[in-house]
Amino acid sequence: MTEMTPLRIGICGVGTVGLATISILQNQLSLLAARCGRELSVTHVGARRDHSDHLYGDAKISRDVMDVARDPDVDVVVELIGGTTVAHELVKLAIEQGKHVVTANKALIAEHGNQLLALAEASGVHLCFEAAVAGGIPVIKSLREALAGNVVSEVAGIINGTGNFILTEMSNKGRAFEDVLSEAQSLGYAEADPTFDIDGTDAAHKLVILASLAFGVPLSIDAPAKEGIQNITPEDLDYAKALGYRVKHLGIARRSGSRIEMRVHPTLIPESKQLAGVDGVLNAIMLKADAVGELLLVGPGAGGAATASSVCSDIIDIARECGPGTRPLGIPVAELNAVSVIPWEEVSSEWYLRLHVTDRPGVMSDITQKLAARGISIESLVQKAAKEGDTDVPIVILTHAVPASLISDAVEAVVALEEVQPDLALIRVEAFD
Amino acid sequence: MTEMTPLRIGICGVGTVGLATISILQNQLSLLAARCGRELSVTHVGARRDHSDHLYGDAKISRDVMDVARDPDVDVVVELIGGTTVAHELVKLAIEQGKHVVTANKALIAEHGNQLLALAEASGVHLCFEAAVAGGIPVIKSLREALAGNVVSEVAGIINGTGNFILTEMSNKGRAFEDVLSEAQSLGYAEADPTFDIDGTDAAHKLVILASLAFGVPLSIDAPAKEGIQNITPEDLDYAKALGYRVKHLGIARRSGSRIEMRVHPTLIPESKQLAGVDGVLNAIMLKADAVGELLLVGPGAGGAATASSVCSDIIDIARECGPGTRPLGIPVAELNAVSVIPWEEVSSEWYLRLHVTDRPGVMSDITQKLAARGISIESLVQKAAKEGDTDVPIVILTHAVPASLISDAVEAVVALEEVQPDLALIRVEAFD
Repeated sequence: MTEMTPLRIGICGVGTVGLATISILQNQLSLLAARCGRELSVTHVGARRDHSDHLYGDAKISRDVMDVARDPDVDVVVELIGGTTVAHELVKLAIEQGKHVVTANKALIAEHGNQLLALAEASGVHLCFEAAVAGGIPVIKSLREALAGNVVSEVAGIINGTGNFILTEMSNKGRAFEDVLSEAQSLGYAEADPTFDIDGTDAAHKLVILASLAFGVPLSIDAPAKEGIQNITPEDLDYAKALGYRVKHLGIARRSGSRIEMRVHPTLIPESKQLAGVDGVLNAIMLKADAVGELLLVGPGAGGAATASSVCSDIIDIARECGPGTRPLGIPVAELNAVSVIPWEEVSSEWYLRLHVTDRPGVMSDITQKLAARGISIESLVQKAAKEGDTDVPIVILTHAVPASLISDAVEAVVALEEVQPDLALIRVEAFD
Repeated sequence: MTEMTPLRIGICGVGTVGLATISILQNQLSLLAARCGRELSVTHVGARRDHSDHLYGDAKISRDVMDVARDPDVDVVVELIGGTTVAHELVKLAIEQGKHVVTANKALIAEHGNQLLALAEASGVHLCFEAAVAGGIPVIKSLREALAGNVVSEVAGIINGTGNFILTEMSNKGRAFEDVLSEAQSLGYAEADPTFDIDGTDAAHKLVILASLAFGVPLSIDAPAKEGIQNITPEDLDYAKALGYRVKHLGIARRSGSRIEMRVHPTLIPESKQLAGVDGVLNAIMLKADAVGELLLVGPGAGGAATASSVCSDIIDIARECGPGTRPLGIPVAELNAVSVIPWEEVSSEWYLRLHVTDRPGVMSDITQKLAARGISIESLVQKAAKEGDTDVPIVILTHAVPASLISDAVEAVVALEEVQPDLALIRVEAFD
């Protein structure tokens, strides 16, 4: 074997992930050299703020990250800035300069991935993004490489740790959404503006990437139907539990005939499924495929060191010259095959419907009649005791599988009843069997 | 990109895994070609028995598998014969002929891996064995590539599906070991001679491979201490459950100072750990490492199609020219660093001890005194009610962490008491916290 030259790495962005990445690269020099057959050397660090108090070894430091992309002494640009403006420009420039790129930026890949990946292919450089989905869990590698002999039929997972932390706390301790959200912010799990974690945008970005890898479809940012966790109440988490379910915020991408389903929403899962037991800030992804059957990958979905683990995995693949090459999505971008996505309204599932109704004779019959009139059969119906001082009683209904359009129509008719309060909950149920 | 020539594959052994591999390669021609940038073509099949009723496309068929290794029209030899005699000779010959090798043979890699891998390195060919450990779960790839930026501290897993099926059935249905074993054999989970599944040999083979990848140590077949599941009783599974534990047969490899622990044995795991909930023929592996923290991979540990999924993953890595190259164990064989393994007797853990004793005043005090005299403190002690018609009462003790030598010595002293029956159970407890 010929002696290989060191791989020269430029790190752009020195937040928690950037610092953790630098720390791994600098503290494990000899181990990484043994594993790669060459040295990994951080030659340039790009950071807007002054970080002269940090030790980056002999690395050059630039305030303008574009200088890193233009540096002839950099082979790999690691983009850890986030966002889709400067990061987009940086990645584009790096590829144009013939550099490999490693990024943890899910929004960038989900939004601009088709163009950037095509550009990387044309330039013969690697564009790697293991850290963009599910932090330290090697789900990109698993889909692209481990399952490469499979036809994947479904990807379903807890892919937003903040959301899972909030739901877990609410479920285990009966706490209110706002209350847990504040704690998540003070613990650093949620951003100052937590909108993307809460409304499903972050999970949708990740799902777009997973679906592209799983099904060979182009990245399409607007494909997933999206519902957040902001309207989930401790009451519904309790009822779900009593029925043998847990509520998780899932991203689901599933083959369905010649089309695919792509959706992000709170979901009742039978407690017997392992996915239902994944609590706190953990992420978990279930993969179903024709040969392997079902795989479940569980691990930290965020955090500096865990995310840096995936960043380093990409860097090491490049150093070993066994990176994804011209196939970061499994097949070349030009061969991706756009498949139509089934609209939310048409996607069938069982449903959890919780109502608060004034308890008068005949109301139950009125409600069930509205469902029956639309061909919706009821799998179970429980009338709960009224809470003390409350005149309304909660009713919890599990339906058989029907499309969203049908249940929405029925719910509209039910809410029109005088005795039914408007604060209902309607949540999809997935048995995953 | 230049047009690449097809990768020509020779399959040796056409049992369930071989047939499933051929089926994937022949049924997914165009998908695999898109994923690899070249065609995958089965050009030669080696099978001792006459399989003229099977369709192998245009593949040559040979009764002597060595003909496949010598065939100039074969680039990759896939060894699916099993055993360590013919398979060993075949893999050696294939490497000497300059062919890449893919194998699912854990015994072969665990026993002869150091020599075969060194030979493959010297010949510049890939020797891949994803399918050798945990069937369809990509644990080899995860350790070698996804965690390549980490220092791994522990690997612990359910890596024998037959054993896990037996323990699950015993635990959930109170069935006896022999009874479930017969069923496992009739279901095809266990071999006609199930010794290796039952006594821990199969799990030890896999653990040897995992430890080598995790810690960069040479494959050493005799390193793991080994205890099987043949003496586990439904009674102990019940008591464990009542105490909040599940009993799983685990392979554990753990860094401990400058040495490592390597052991295969039934283990009490707190029911709150996800590993405790992995039931039936499933496998699951927990990986702990400095950057990523904890990962759990769950999936099918056996079965033709699931194992073929891993075989195909290796073949596709080779076709994409991103295989493990000269580093199938993460680092070159010459750089593996032999580390001493802590003898079983020295390895500390908490212990579950179940006794049957004649119920007379003072016996409990005699027992606890024997433990106390050796500095073994008791975490909990439960005296169960005697079973109907039984004069003996069961006593269940959980100890604090002590080495095996100490607890063995104490147990010997306890059993010497006239009131204590010889049919005790002594099982390690692992909290994994």
